[in-house]
Amino acid sequence: MVRSHGSMTARYLRNSWYQIGWSADVPTGRLLARTILDVPLVVWRGNTGELSACMDRCPHRFAPLSAGAVSDNTLVCGYHGLAFDRAGACARNPHGATPSALRVETFPTLERHGAIWIWMGQGDRADPALLPDLSFIDDTPDDTRIIATLPTAANYQLLSDNILDLSHLDYVHPTTLGGMMTGATSRNQVNANEIVMEWIAKDAHTPSGLKPMVPEGRCDVYQKLTWRPPGLMVLSTTVVAAGTSPEPINERLTLHNVTPESDMATHYFVCSTRRFARGSVEITASIRAALMKAFVEEDKPMLEKQQERMGTADLWSLKPTLLKTDSGAVWARRKLDALIKAEFEDRNSAELAGS
Amino acid sequence: MVRSHGSMTARYLRNSWYQIGWSADVPTGRLLARTILDVPLVVWRGNTGELSACMDRCPHRFAPLSAGAVSDNTLVCGYHGLAFDRAGACARNPHGATPSALRVETFPTLERHGAIWIWMGQGDRADPALLPDLSFIDDTPDDTRIIATLPTAANYQLLSDNILDLSHLDYVHPTTLGGMMTGATSRNQVNANEIVMEWIAKDAHTPSGLKPMVPEGRCDVYQKLTWRPPGLMVLSTTVVAAGTSPEPINERLTLHNVTPESDMATHYFVCSTRRFARGSVEITASIRAALMKAFVEEDKPMLEKQQERMGTADLWSLKPTLLKTDSGAVWARRKLDALIKAEFEDRNSAELAGS
Amino acid sequence: MVRSHGSMTARYLRNSWYQIGWSADVPTGRLLARTILDVPLVVWRGNTGELSACMDRCPHRFAPLSAGAVSDNTLVCGYHGLAFDRAGACARNPHGATPSALRVETFPTLERHGAIWIWMGQGDRADPALLPDLSFIDDTPDDTRIIATLPTAANYQLLSDNILDLSHLDYVHPTTLGGMMTGATSRNQVNANEIVMEWIAKDAHTPSGLKPMVPEGRCDVYQKLTWRPPGLMVLSTTVVAAGTSPEPINERLTLHNVTPESDMATHYFVCSTRRFARGSVEITASIRAALMKAFVEEDKPMLEKQQERMGTADLWSLKPTLLKTDSGAVWARRKLDALIKAEFEDRNSAELAGS
Repeated sequence: MVRSHGSMTARYLRNSWYQIGWSADVPTGRLLARTILDVPLVVWRGNTGELSACMDRCPHRFAPLSAGAVSDNTLVCGYHGLAFDRAGACARNPHGATPSALRVETFPTLERHGAIWIWMGQGDRADPALLPDLSFIDDTPDDTRIIATLPTAANYQLLSDNILDLSHLDYVHPTTLGGMMTGATSRNQVNANEIVMEWIAKDAHTPSGLKPMVPEGRCDVYQKLTWRPPGLMVLSTTVVAAGTSPEPINERLTLHNVTPESDMATHYFVCSTRRFARGSVEITASIRAALMKAFVEEDKPMLEKQQERMGTADLWSLKPTLLKTDSGAVWARRKLDALIKAEFEDRNSAELAGS
Repeated sequence: MVRSHGSMTARYLRNSWYQIGWSADVPTGRLLARTILDVPLVVWRGNTGELSACMDRCPHRFAPLSAGAVSDNTLVCGYHGLAFDRAGACARNPHGATPSALRVETFPTLERHGAIWIWMGQGDRADPALLPDLSFIDDTPDDTRIIATLPTAANYQLLSDNILDLSHLDYVHPTTLGGMMTGATSRNQVNANEIVMEWIAKDAHTPSGLKPMVPEGRCDVYQKLTWRPPGLMVLSTTVVAAGTSPEPINERLTLHNVTPESDMATHYFVCSTRRFARGSVEITASIRAALMKAFVEEDKPMLEKQQERMGTADLWSLKPTLLKTDSGAVWARRKLDALIKAEFEDRNSAELAGS
Repeated sequence: MVRSHGSMTARYLRNSWYQIGWSADVPTGRLLARTILDVPLVVWRGNTGELSACMDRCPHRFAPLSAGAVSDNTLVCGYHGLAFDRAGACARNPHGATPSALRVETFPTLERHGAIWIWMGQGDRADPALLPDLSFIDDTPDDTRIIATLPTAANYQLLSDNILDLSHLDYVHPTTLGGMMTGATSRNQVNANEIVMEWIAKDAHTPSGLKPMVPEGRCDVYQKLTWRPPGLMVLSTTVVAAGTSPEPINERLTLHNVTPESDMATHYFVCSTRRFARGSVEITASIRAALMKAFVEEDKPMLEKQQERMGTADLWSLKPTLLKTDSGAVWARRKLDALIKAEFEDRNSAELAGS
């Protein structure tokens, strides 16, 4: 069911670019249906490759427009053939006159860094400059880049919490990615609009998922995570043989980006890149396999069980007993809450002024 | 769960004959369980072939009576063996005395035109003369008649809307039934208790579903639909080679009848007849296949997606932008709403007078 | 979702031992997750065999503790490695200091008669002496004892009602356990904290499920059921060849114990014992097969359909028409309702006194 997203609520940050998919998800002349922030959307690409996004609901009889097709640079409803242009206007009613009221709501889009971004807030604030710089993705050759879309039945903030506290690695991923975090040193830094976490583990056991970097013996692991609201995280991982010096060539940069589908479901987008062994299909395959196993078999079940136990309750209402290792996640939640609150008050003021 | 259907609400028209199944669905000594208008019902046929209908819930311990069996012209509960007669009285308690309060609510039934009809309103108004004449069904030999029961997860009025606006044929059924509606002329007529729609398409492409009528070349299509509340529609279709005269022998008459199971689900009953090629099992099979493909693969998915997008919202609350092609459906909805409202007020007045 | 079970409601009797499983369900060093009275619980057994039970939800991040493992006499959360001892205190935080507030709620347990019992009310009232004596289970050799755990999507009181009125045998189990109840004499006795029902059927048809006792000819059946709140029933069944004297050696004693998972679901525990043919694996297999067939294929479908028809409504709100054969079940419901009400008022008084 569609909730009106015109009625502003404080559930999500609206004025932000949200990733809705990858460029490859929408070939020329095709469409993608995906619900984000509780709004069913359809993203489509016309003949010339330009992207558009609108509500996935025909204003005539409410059939999903994604049950139709792209034709002649319009999105054509599969029920009665009404065609809508990029601006949301009805460009063709095959059965008669076209009422000017026959429009579908559109949303600003942006295609950058191999991904498709959508703006769910006030259209006049949709500034492409607000999207964080992810050019490390563009700098990585196709055969070295790993992308994944991982649907998860849990709130997006639980996914952020998960990554903002890497102490979980030893327990959720004991044989794949973990086993080296106990004894790691960590620190975090709270900047104006980002949280930066760092963990350093020296002379540690090398888990199987890090063998592509250090095939034999113990390792040193340097991890640095940058979180930006609402849930865009970039993790830098540098693994070297224990006692050797970490060099830029050893770095992996991975995008972990969580877009809410609803309060209870998340589209989790991952893009893994590296500076070393570029072009090695074996290393790419090995990293992809480790990443998929760790998420699909380890993180996802834990996150979904956690959500199930929490039900529809807000985290704070359940009064969690927090640890020092939660500090990054708590800072991130506070920042996001403050942004959502400010946006809500700003919108309410605007509405009062306009009334 | 069972809502009390004694408490009158304005959700459905009550004083009307609703089709609950086909005669063949209930052999002698057997029963059929089906929920209509949110009321779980069981229809059963005794030794002598007479039909009865009652709430599908034993008044003793609330087991469904349909989990029992018909025996000795009674309906016997499968839990403790209580037997109920056609009037709903307990005819036998194998374990002791029978309290006179032990009764199950019954509903008037009518068997006509190969179908079973049930009256969900005030019993004293259950007049068989109120059932529209569908004798074209009786006039059709068995081997030429096609009947189907098509459950659909959508409100019954969406199914009526669908058929009352045949402009959807070219889009939902582009290769089966459609391709000839663009350019068709149409008109509609609003009578006291029915809506009549007509569409005429000349020199049109012949879709595969109409090939049994016009195997080669272009066609002329004459369609005439009569809707009666709450959702009984008869469609006359006459297809002839383009430029030839439509004769009575070319006519197909099809019953499209929608009975609400609930707000969100419909029992869609179809009976297709024809005047031509009677007795041809090939033509019967060909028409049946086209009809099933068109509904099961084309209409049903669209209607269910439409319902999903609408959620539990009423059509008008979503403010549809309507077109000229919606006029028949809008008239039908207005008529039905007016009848439901009048019935509701009439009932309330009666209750006030009786209090 | 977890409802706070701290907030006392009148839905369940709290101060009572509830069976949560069988001893064999929790081997040394293993755990069992099961929800009872709407509370998700985990029962675990340490190195030395001692049982513990706690909320199945980590107080840190609310992951289910059952997604972790038992280690070193502690229950270790699978998300971040926090370890909890038998008293619910956090015995180890691998990542830093352990806040004293980091505790999980525990529940008194009792292991007796091959079963695991848990106390869901006030801890200081958890007296093992309150558990009814089921030593007939301990007196039965392993190869003669049949245990089963039968999940049922129906309220636990519907399962009690079912067994407290054996007049259903002839109808739900016509070919397996029934066929001899019509004409049986019955009486019931209401004691302080139990209901006792007796049924005697003489010179009756011998159903297939009783053939292990009386292979040929007609039978006499003596049945005596004792119900204790909230839903612990012991059924004594003595079947002998018609006209012969019932002896203690002919007796079967079966525990039928119903623990609510929620309002709409029950953990039904069965333990069948007998005095005759002890050690006969054929007789054990035959009785087990009859018991499973009767429940899984006959009772369970009827109980679940009954619950479906009742929906979320309370039995009394639906105004059942009761029969003489319901008297035992009605007494049992009244006793249980009175105990729940008394406990609720007692708790409220205590809270007022303490405030």
